Amino acid sequence: MGLTSAVQSGDRLALSRLLSQIEDDTPQGRAALEALFPHTGKAYLVGVTGAPGTGKSSLVNRLAYHYRHPPQGEEPQKVAVVAVDPTSPFTGGALLGDRIRMQDLAGDPGVFIRSMASRGALGGLAATTTGLVQAFDAGGFELIFIETVGAGQVEVDIASLAHTTLVVDAPGLGDDVQAIKAGILEIADVLVVNKADRPGADQALRALRTMLQLAHPAPRTFRHHNRIFEAVPAAGPAPSAQEGPAAWEPPIVATVSTEGKGISELAQAIEAHRRHLIDSAGWGRRERERLGTELDLRLQQALVSRWREQVDPESYRQVLEKLVSRAITPQEAVRALVDGKDTP
Amino acid sequence: MGLTSAVQSGDRLALSRLLSQIEDDTPQGRAALEALFPHTGKAYLVGVTGAPGTGKSSLVNRLAYHYRHPPQGEEPQKVAVVAVDPTSPFTGGALLGDRIRMQDLAGDPGVFIRSMASRGALGGLAATTTGLVQAFDAGGFELIFIETVGAGQVEVDIASLAHTTLVVDAPGLGDDVQAIKAGILEIADVLVVNKADRPGADQALRALRTMLQLAHPAPRTFRHHNRIFEAVPAAGPAPSAQEGPAAWEPPIVATVSTEGKGISELAQAIEAHRRHLIDSAGWGRRERERLGTELDLRLQQALVSRWREQVDPESYRQVLEKLVSRAITPQEAVRALVDGKDTP
Repeated sequence: MGLTSAVQSGDRLALSRLLSQIEDDTPQGRAALEALFPHTGKAYLVGVTGAPGTGKSSLVNRLAYHYRHPPQGEEPQKVAVVAVDPTSPFTGGALLGDRIRMQDLAGDPGVFIRSMASRGALGGLAATTTGLVQAFDAGGFELIFIETVGAGQVEVDIASLAHTTLVVDAPGLGDDVQAIKAGILEIADVLVVNKADRPGADQALRALRTMLQLAHPAPRTFRHHNRIFEAVPAAGPAPSAQEGPAAWEPPIVATVSTEGKGISELAQAIEAHRRHLIDSAGWGRRERERLGTELDLRLQQALVSRWREQVDPESYRQVLEKLVSRAITPQEAVRALVDGKDTP
Repeated sequence: MGLTSAVQSGDRLALSRLLSQIEDDTPQGRAALEALFPHTGKAYLVGVTGAPGTGKSSLVNRLAYHYRHPPQGEEPQKVAVVAVDPTSPFTGGALLGDRIRMQDLAGDPGVFIRSMASRGALGGLAATTTGLVQAFDAGGFELIFIETVGAGQVEVDIASLAHTTLVVDAPGLGDDVQAIKAGILEIADVLVVNKADRPGADQALRALRTMLQLAHPAPRTFRHHNRIFEAVPAAGPAPSAQEGPAAWEPPIVATVSTEGKGISELAQAIEAHRRHLIDSAGWGRRERERLGTELDLRLQQALVSRWREQVDPESYRQVLEKLVSRAITPQEAVRALVDGKDTP
């Protein structure tokens, strides 16, 4: 049985091997993803981001446990977690790694947690995350959490491409952590105040409510980077009309993830947002945004690699040296390399 | 007098206007940068990064003050600060903004601090930072600090492109902040333990020393993203031979930035690294790496924009819709768009 059919049939070892190949950006990994692509698009993606110290990992663990042990009458779902970990391959990979995180969920074949050290993503962080998510999707995982630390442009972009994005806050963080929080509020579909048993929790909740009121009714202003065409709406009415009768107002949920408090309320908020996406045309719009971002990334790579194939590395080097010595400007350098114009 | 000559002559208002145009990515801003480029390359760039909560901003303020009021016998230098602030245009811009930061340095024409909200960088974070640095460089600022929060791929890349990169740590940070730290140690030329009067400072110093010993003699393994040619060395001996007789071992400096302690020791460590760069061929190598990264970014943009000019947005939209419906794979979509191949 080939790798792709093994992954589809739920073979954990095959999936694990595929995930490594995606991280290493191997030709086999790329080919397998291409073969699996028609079988993707079924999973529900939940982005989880927030400043360091807010307890995102333990929150995601609790959520995963919740979906594995749902209230009576609901089916348990297969859950995968892709954690973008800001650690280094150099220091031995994900410090908050798979082992520690797996304790609650150990031995459950319906859960798969993969920590990816952000500097270890050879094909780039966004592309690697997309690949891992697609592999889990094709492998039959119904719910995929994408967890990032919300302090970087790329990391926030990644989390915001999910169907539902949770932004996690906690009381008592330092000033610059607060500033990070402010930068990512606008991508939240659901706001979480974790560690809500700590002093200052009420204050944190009030502050978030005020910020949301100030923001409302401003639309989601968040703009993705690297889009080739600024906005490519589907045929049909404008996005605002597609939103349905009522726009979504992000609810705020208080949790204590270490004690499992507020987790079912959070799951309900996620479910409410999922229904909203289905009722409005939001689902398709997010899917289009996500695949559009992936397409643009691949177009860029294809254009660059085609150009590289027909350029002489030596002339590239010469142009770069002229640039370093300030004999030419960056624009002249680009013209020389792309149009073959002579440099002064 | 035109904008570019006004900037070169030290006109603060003109410089301020140019900085805004660079942030807004206007055609005038781009043209001015192009005209100023031959006058750049003189400034010394110091990257400052570290996890949230380590006190980077106050450290940079103190350093700026130090270079403005140097020990007897040394000349004061003109100092600029580009602070990449993880805040949102939506919440009113840089929370840790220029006003608060300027208190110590207010009224000194030899200091210019610019906070850039990371989501406000219309041309992309890396390109905007590069532009701001070039504007300060052409405006005669001799020392430019580039301060980022080290929790994102792009942000760490930006700081590491300086001549000297400081990585700032502090005692008593939470677990995931520690993990962020581990991810950025490898780009450090100088390590700083700030807030060294706090409990746990000795432990933090010891931990860093151990990590450095484990790392040594591993070379700087850090790899920049988006390079079109993996390594384009200058003509001449291999980089390792150019390093000079002794490789650089990052020193660890303890500081208490709120009280100004350890600041002159830190300045000495920066100066020692600067001399090392000049004595080895490191200076030119970093310059080449920085401009190479900029060149590659611009090449990408040029290739994409040329391609976009000759593609029909409607056919792009159709290909994207086929991708969303899983009728074609990403690779087929790219082939259809770049080679004009028919899709199934």
